[in-house]
Amino acid sequence: MKAIIIGGAGFIGSCCAARLLEDSQNRVTIFDNFSSGRHWHLETLLSTQRINIIKNDAQDVNALTEAMHGHEIVFHFASNPDIAKAATEPTIDFYQGTLLSQNVFEAARLTGVEKIIYASGSGIFGDNPSKVFNEDDFSSTPTSTYAASKAAGETLLSAYSSMFGLHGISYRFANVVGPHQTHGVAFDFINRLRKNPHTLSVLGDGTQTKSYIHVDDIVTALLYFKDAFPAPYNYFNLTTDDTLTVKQIAELVISEMGLQDVVVQYGSADRGWSGDVPRIRFTASKMKAYGWCPQRNALEAMRASIRGMIDNANKGLFE
Amino acid sequence: MKAIIIGGAGFIGSCCAARLLEDSQNRVTIFDNFSSGRHWHLETLLSTQRINIIKNDAQDVNALTEAMHGHEIVFHFASNPDIAKAATEPTIDFYQGTLLSQNVFEAARLTGVEKIIYASGSGIFGDNPSKVFNEDDFSSTPTSTYAASKAAGETLLSAYSSMFGLHGISYRFANVVGPHQTHGVAFDFINRLRKNPHTLSVLGDGTQTKSYIHVDDIVTALLYFKDAFPAPYNYFNLTTDDTLTVKQIAELVISEMGLQDVVVQYGSADRGWSGDVPRIRFTASKMKAYGWCPQRNALEAMRASIRGMIDNANKGLFE
Repeated sequence: MKAIIIGGAGFIGSCCAARLLEDSQNRVTIFDNFSSGRHWHLETLLSTQRINIIKNDAQDVNALTEAMHGHEIVFHFASNPDIAKAATEPTIDFYQGTLLSQNVFEAARLTGVEKIIYASGSGIFGDNPSKVFNEDDFSSTPTSTYAASKAAGETLLSAYSSMFGLHGISYRFANVVGPHQTHGVAFDFINRLRKNPHTLSVLGDGTQTKSYIHVDDIVTALLYFKDAFPAPYNYFNLTTDDTLTVKQIAELVISEMGLQDVVVQYGSADRGWSGDVPRIRFTASKMKAYGWCPQRNALEAMRASIRGMIDNANKGLFE
Repeated sequence: MKAIIIGGAGFIGSCCAARLLEDSQNRVTIFDNFSSGRHWHLETLLSTQRINIIKNDAQDVNALTEAMHGHEIVFHFASNPDIAKAATEPTIDFYQGTLLSQNVFEAARLTGVEKIIYASGSGIFGDNPSKVFNEDDFSSTPTSTYAASKAAGETLLSAYSSMFGLHGISYRFANVVGPHQTHGVAFDFINRLRKNPHTLSVLGDGTQTKSYIHVDDIVTALLYFKDAFPAPYNYFNLTTDDTLTVKQIAELVISEMGLQDVVVQYGSADRGWSGDVPRIRFTASKMKAYGWCPQRNALEAMRASIRGMIDNANKGLFE
């Protein structure tokens, strides 16, 4: 199988590439502008002749189209990874989100790449802490431009599948964690504590409660239907059943870093930033009905990721 | 009240302008690129000094921002009006839809225009003829890029309202009809029968069943909350309770044009074009709970519009 991964140098894209390359029948093209992608994400993959790296921007539909020729499946991860950034850069999720999805789906149509895997997120359920969302609880009232951009990608992929014969799957991720992550709450805590191991200030009051899922479980799901899509268009939630609070994560990071007497300073707001959804619960029941099941719960996923990130930080990869 | 209407020379936009100008306290700015907008839509409004017309494109966010300064409310109707066009121009609903919404909401944020009225459509419910949709049945699986673009506008307006303190309302229109319309099934039938009064060929098998609503009832709803929005963000369906088939509309047009012995040739497909939703039922119960009620049912709306369109065609306005 010849796969092209848009945003393939990013955290999730590079893990997806690594798994695909484990099968010697597969070839992988990485398409990334390396704005949040990292060369070290791909380092261990470069020994194979079956990887091709294109440094270019998905804002350029012609470059995308040229790169996509001859592939059978496209994985679309290209996106602004920083949900909080829109508070100061309000158009970022359009130009580094919605527009990229338009370009990826259009390039797939133009080149006849039939299968498209799209990375969406749980923000598409909106902000309703009293509800446990299932796959059909798509909301018209997301609270961030990031989530609106993810929702726009889903509806566009559905339309392209319906009108132009593409096959698409949207996956709504919980917060994805893993040793290679370059954003996220534990990543931030580790970096701050390396600079100042005495004090940790936390965005929000620490009660924010979310699900965290290990990237290995995400990748398993992303490749689950690669040989036979279950429908012209489909959508799945990917999450663990348990959740962690920000306070639990802070304590876990401090403990795994072997620090003592850290003063943790919590804010007063119930959320970390404008547009944040501080409490979210949703189920992956549809994907589980197909036999997928995460191998780590949120606590195990978070602990494994924290240990991996501490190792990577010690290797100087985060500088 | 100073209102700016993006797409204000179009069918619905110009009717909205006319109603606003009935109140001598109101001033209206029309912002339109006149691609589907028409000068004759505005002709009767030009006698007042309270209208200002700006010919420019909503793809230009700087031009929009400049035009929007000093207004209190923005009505956003700018959109490719031809749902079928994407079959041959797949990116049209992005560049003449999704992008325009991004620009309108961003210009409103930049200029501090707090109130935004957004024209969405029933395509956001997807294609499920067995269901009667209510306001919360927002679907992640629209079947056309037109509908995906409308959905993207809704989620973006919700996000902008949540993050940047704007007040937004999305209205999902049934098929809007009126004497000034320049698209739509009855409009097409009238124009074809004027060219050839003996034969009428119909896209699809004629069983397509949809709700039609008169533009006067739409405008009443659009202005319903202009002085006090009911929430930072809200969304309403606007439809009649009854539906018409395409076959009924063909017969009505033929009868109103006074034609006889017209051979009506139906196609074999159950829908008119790729991406069409041939049977759709939804309710306007949320808007009705606020006291709004359409003054014409679908049949009355369609008949009044056909009569008006025949008059306009006889005046040469459709050439």
